[in-house]
Amino acid sequence: MTTLLNNYFRLFDASRADERAMQDLLSLFTPDAEIVLNGTSRKGFEGFMKAFYEYNSDVKHMWEKWEPQPDGSYQTNWAVCGQSADGKVYAKTGIDIARLNDAGQIIYLENVQDDKDAFSKYNQ
Amino acid sequence: MTTLLNNYFRLFDASRADERAMQDLLSLFTPDAEIVLNGTSRKGFEGFMKAFYEYNSDVKHMWEKWEPQPDGSYQTNWAVCGQSADGKVYAKTGIDIARLNDAGQIIYLENVQDDKDAFSKYNQ
Repeated sequence: MTTLLNNYFRLFDASRADERAMQDLLSLFTPDAEIVLNGTSRKGFEGFMKAFYEYNSDVKHMWEKWEPQPDGSYQTNWAVCGQSADGKVYAKTGIDIARLNDAGQIIYLENVQDDKDAFSKYNQ
Repeated sequence: MTTLLNNYFRLFDASRADERAMQDLLSLFTPDAEIVLNGTSRKGFEGFMKAFYEYNSDVKHMWEKWEPQPDGSYQTNWAVCGQSADGKVYAKTGIDIARLNDAGQIIYLENVQDDKDAFSKYNQ
């Protein structure tokens, strides 16, 4: 399970320039997977990825060990640097929370950015 | 000049796993180049790099266009994500200021991290 979740990050970065990696990335998710970004939920990962590379020209993730949680989900701390389509660079940290079904597909992925201006329930 | 400075970032990241990239990176600098990190000056880039990869297992830089300054130096905004040797991930932004000699070697490199807790003269 954690290998699959490690591949999620690897394929995310590779999918920028590699259509096969994009297809492999999307295959990790159920079509109706719940994707939660900073508290906003949507269904399906493909739409998110299409929008992502419209607004980002490059991205690189680093992540710590995915840790199994008592509720069956997995959680990791990540760091990312990227360059937006207009050339500006950015760097962020946060956590990802993932849940998989019995078939080993991601059915839930929550991305919570660290926020230096406010403490949320997720901040460590 | 800006190609050389772009190569600086590329070779920095590549030098983690590629000794030839490390040698090419060091060749960009004069042996006694002044390296300034958050206000602390030292001489020579090789010592910095040796220490860097003792404490970091991976790093990735992204950067904006190097802009020539009125004093002849070049400046860019960068973003970095990395993983320290103990597995922790981090993300930072900042600026680099570089000066080159007539032979096209870096004689001065200043790295100023953005600091969310304080404003310095470098913050934009």
